[in-house]
Amino acid sequence: MFRHVVMFKFVYTVTAEQKLAVLEGLSRLPNEIGQIRSFSFGEDARVVDGNYDVVVVADFDSSDDYLVYASHPGHREFVSTCVLPFLASRAAVQYAASE
Amino acid sequence: MFRHVVMFKFVYTVTAEQKLAVLEGLSRLPNEIGQIRSFSFGEDARVVDGNYDVVVVADFDSSDDYLVYASHPGHREFVSTCVLPFLASRAAVQYAASE
Repeated sequence: MFRHVVMFKFVYTVTAEQKLAVLEGLSRLPNEIGQIRSFSFGEDARVVDGNYDVVVVADFDSSDDYLVYASHPGHREFVSTCVLPFLASRAAVQYAASE
Repeated sequence: MFRHVVMFKFVYTVTAEQKLAVLEGLSRLPNEIGQIRSFSFGEDARVVDGNYDVVVVADFDSSDDYLVYASHPGHREFVSTCVLPFLASRAAVQYAASE
């Protein structure tokens, strides 16, 4: 299994509506992109300080399937519309995860 | 389920041995800390550029169990010995994940 993990930190001026649009956009991706095997995401629980705002944990059968996801028009539109305009920092790792 | 996701980016001078010690230290944590329900980690696959180096995805029954983990002596020693001396950046999110 090939796992993609990405975190977003938003600019201070981001609104609740803009953050909600990120979460709603993420919720639509598994229906649009068949290569996604499993998909989990969430907003930081604010249990500790200094965290990023949102994390996505997405599993694929292979790195090739991840790359299809990364370049998929539905994913690209989501990123350019919902994420990039409000993005302060991004952190990502992809790794070979056990089943 | 309460999920903790953290990424580390190491300084440019980190050695292969020092990175291996991080992975070995992570592999020991589930045996030392009973609150961990599931634990996955890995080194970045280098499929794309600009990523962090290592990610950890750890699941707990509750945020309280995560906080026990975070302050557990075994975890603290691992972080202070294996991670902090070589850490360039850290990114983390905790969130309520579905089962």
